[in-house]
Amino acid sequence: MAIFVCKFGGTSLATLPQIDKAIDIMLADKSRRFMVVSAPGARFKGDVKVTDLLIRAAAEYRLTGRSESADQVVERFREIVPEATELCERLHKELLERLAEKEADNHEEAVKAFGEYGSACVVEAILKKKGISAQMAEPRELGLTIIGSGHNARPDAKCYAKIGKVLRSMKGFDIIVVPGFYGYDNAGNIQTLPRGGSDTSGAVVARAAGATHYENWTDENGLRRADPRIVPHAATIPEMTYDEARELAYMGFKLQDACFEPIKGNNIVLSVRNTNNPDHPGTRIMDTRTVAPEERIVGVACEQNFVSIGMRKLYIDKEVGFGRKMLGVSEKLGLPYEHTLDGVDSAALLLARKYLKEEGMFDKVVKGLKKACRPEAMMIRDMALLSVAGFGMQNHFDVHARTFSALAEAKVAVRMIDEGADDLSFFVGVDNEQAAAAVKAVYDAFYSEQFQS
Amino acid sequence: MAIFVCKFGGTSLATLPQIDKAIDIMLADKSRRFMVVSAPGARFKGDVKVTDLLIRAAAEYRLTGRSESADQVVERFREIVPEATELCERLHKELLERLAEKEADNHEEAVKAFGEYGSACVVEAILKKKGISAQMAEPRELGLTIIGSGHNARPDAKCYAKIGKVLRSMKGFDIIVVPGFYGYDNAGNIQTLPRGGSDTSGAVVARAAGATHYENWTDENGLRRADPRIVPHAATIPEMTYDEARELAYMGFKLQDACFEPIKGNNIVLSVRNTNNPDHPGTRIMDTRTVAPEERIVGVACEQNFVSIGMRKLYIDKEVGFGRKMLGVSEKLGLPYEHTLDGVDSAALLLARKYLKEEGMFDKVVKGLKKACRPEAMMIRDMALLSVAGFGMQNHFDVHARTFSALAEAKVAVRMIDEGADDLSFFVGVDNEQAAAAVKAVYDAFYSEQFQS
Repeated sequence: MAIFVCKFGGTSLATLPQIDKAIDIMLADKSRRFMVVSAPGARFKGDVKVTDLLIRAAAEYRLTGRSESADQVVERFREIVPEATELCERLHKELLERLAEKEADNHEEAVKAFGEYGSACVVEAILKKKGISAQMAEPRELGLTIIGSGHNARPDAKCYAKIGKVLRSMKGFDIIVVPGFYGYDNAGNIQTLPRGGSDTSGAVVARAAGATHYENWTDENGLRRADPRIVPHAATIPEMTYDEARELAYMGFKLQDACFEPIKGNNIVLSVRNTNNPDHPGTRIMDTRTVAPEERIVGVACEQNFVSIGMRKLYIDKEVGFGRKMLGVSEKLGLPYEHTLDGVDSAALLLARKYLKEEGMFDKVVKGLKKACRPEAMMIRDMALLSVAGFGMQNHFDVHARTFSALAEAKVAVRMIDEGADDLSFFVGVDNEQAAAAVKAVYDAFYSEQFQS
Repeated sequence: MAIFVCKFGGTSLATLPQIDKAIDIMLADKSRRFMVVSAPGARFKGDVKVTDLLIRAAAEYRLTGRSESADQVVERFREIVPEATELCERLHKELLERLAEKEADNHEEAVKAFGEYGSACVVEAILKKKGISAQMAEPRELGLTIIGSGHNARPDAKCYAKIGKVLRSMKGFDIIVVPGFYGYDNAGNIQTLPRGGSDTSGAVVARAAGATHYENWTDENGLRRADPRIVPHAATIPEMTYDEARELAYMGFKLQDACFEPIKGNNIVLSVRNTNNPDHPGTRIMDTRTVAPEERIVGVACEQNFVSIGMRKLYIDKEVGFGRKMLGVSEKLGLPYEHTLDGVDSAALLLARKYLKEEGMFDKVVKGLKKACRPEAMMIRDMALLSVAGFGMQNHFDVHARTFSALAEAKVAVRMIDEGADDLSFFVGVDNEQAAAAVKAVYDAFYSEQFQS
């Protein structure tokens, strides 16, 4: 039996007409029983999302004991359901209560999570008003436990069974509304998932509910084979595996890939679809798929601002432990590394600049490498990384030829290549300034005759 | 002032006519003052080299208290200088003395080193008979100290100054003959360098003598841009830097690259030349050189029998310390690693099979990785590695395009790529069975219109 969990993003819930679209989607298929909601997003270009208002509100309140932004949040809900005066007053009161707990460790988290909570309350009210048998399931009732905090906050896999039990106990309702983005820590305090965490909430519900499909409803027709800001004509990816999606999501894809953990390997099809264009099939992500004989890659992703720290030293190859010493430096500083590159008398450590923002951190890495590895010379180079990905590359000899011929023609200098950890992608380093030219060249090398969207 | 050190290999000293050629080369230029000699090599295809006879002799003697192979060694010297009966008798006596010390820790080393020692005595005698002012300088007199042992034996850099002093004190002689391959440890016992170590002895003499040139005289016209067994028409490399030579020497080049250490960075030009064709300029290796604008690569090297151990695990990228754990496994087992490859949810450790010969070693690595890294899946793949090298690649956008287009056309599947540790090479992994096809394709992609040798 098909069971669909549908997660709706901020723009899909920003106004009443948008919520109506989302509800129409829910009603179009009886299998769509679970509706995971984000906080109301931007209504128009330049509009402030409710979550951002809430972050401001928490800061304002801690500083001044009151908050104008909090009023704006309540106003946003009132704009959606002006007739539900009682609900809006209750939401206002509850938000003020959360703001008042300004000494709590989780003050910001609790306030920030209010956007999804309020959104779920509002959607539940609208559904009920339409005469639909609907019920909100709050993460506390569900037992959605968050472990870790900050960037490392994630759902506790141990809670899936409990959530499933609660959801099954609600089988009397046609639609169950779950606020995304937050849960509770073991002490019972609200904790939020990293930004974009509603995707993960939806995945947890999908796993717990034993869903066959997890639909992620956004404002775009699925995921594209290349960043549309660089390649406006980039085609939508009809389907790919979770592994392929990870290769692309890693670098600049819109989908928050932390949401894969609960669903990957559980026979759940994740699709990314467009609330404003529900007839478009979007992008389907699944455990396994059949690769068409002519397919070479699923897409090309790109992220800028990596830095390669290269070291030269005669006979590195005979120095047992060199690589371990090199990686020990970044590990000691708590830095993840992206790639290590090995030459004969040279080695390089490639790090993401985003992890090096702390003042003096980069110098610490360089100093640490000098001390641990004693190189004869060091070379620092900034670069962007492209990920060229897709299982299809296994079936063709010419994927590299196409890629590098296109880069040569575009006069893009290749700064690094790392391939071989698996059979489904390779990484190419280029100068930051050439990143866009590189993405365009690679995309066109594989898809120039297939304009679709 | 130009000072040349000339090292002659085994085939250049295998017979009297060959030794005469070597002496003619020495006499052709007054700057050629230092002559470093190997043991007599093969006289014809299938002939046994003196060094191999000596290894047998040591084993025979330890087993039976006598040795036929030792007699054959003396016979080889007698064949070269039949008239020097006194010298040949002395050599016979000295070899028997070395053999007799069968309880010594360095028994095999002392016997093995006798080939170079005898060769130097014989060459000195021939030079003197020709009326040339020549003198042998034995490594003990020179103070050539060896540190480490077995595969790790190497000259002690601290002894260069002392050797230089001794050599300068011999300025009364026109030609100084130095036996290669061996020296003495700090206790005064003979120690040999790893096989091919006469190249290193020559480099030590070149460094110590303040030479401007180190000529390595072989039986080929220098080094080729690709293995001539695979690409018979491969051109000779006219010149390259030490760094470039290292990239190629690493994988299957004939020159023993341990010899670079004493000379690299000391303004010494190393040339590889042909005793049988002294008019050919051979290959010059130097610290720096000017790369012609049209030059792309200096050559392509290849070695077979590497194994990649790949691991898959969701969110490896977020696991701080994964790489260090992976490298810790090989380090603990005392294994050098060739490459590490990094994917998004995957990583691979690439090792040379030659280091995995000990029974059960490969299983130990796999077991160690399973325990340390806890992968969800492992993939083992054997492969050959190509090294495409040359500073010229920095000046051209199309080096990768040419390489991978050629491989695609030859239907060679690319299994790994590692580039970016420096600007002068990249590694490409292919199936062992496709190694020759790959080398041929890459060579022809860069040199198909330049048949020369």
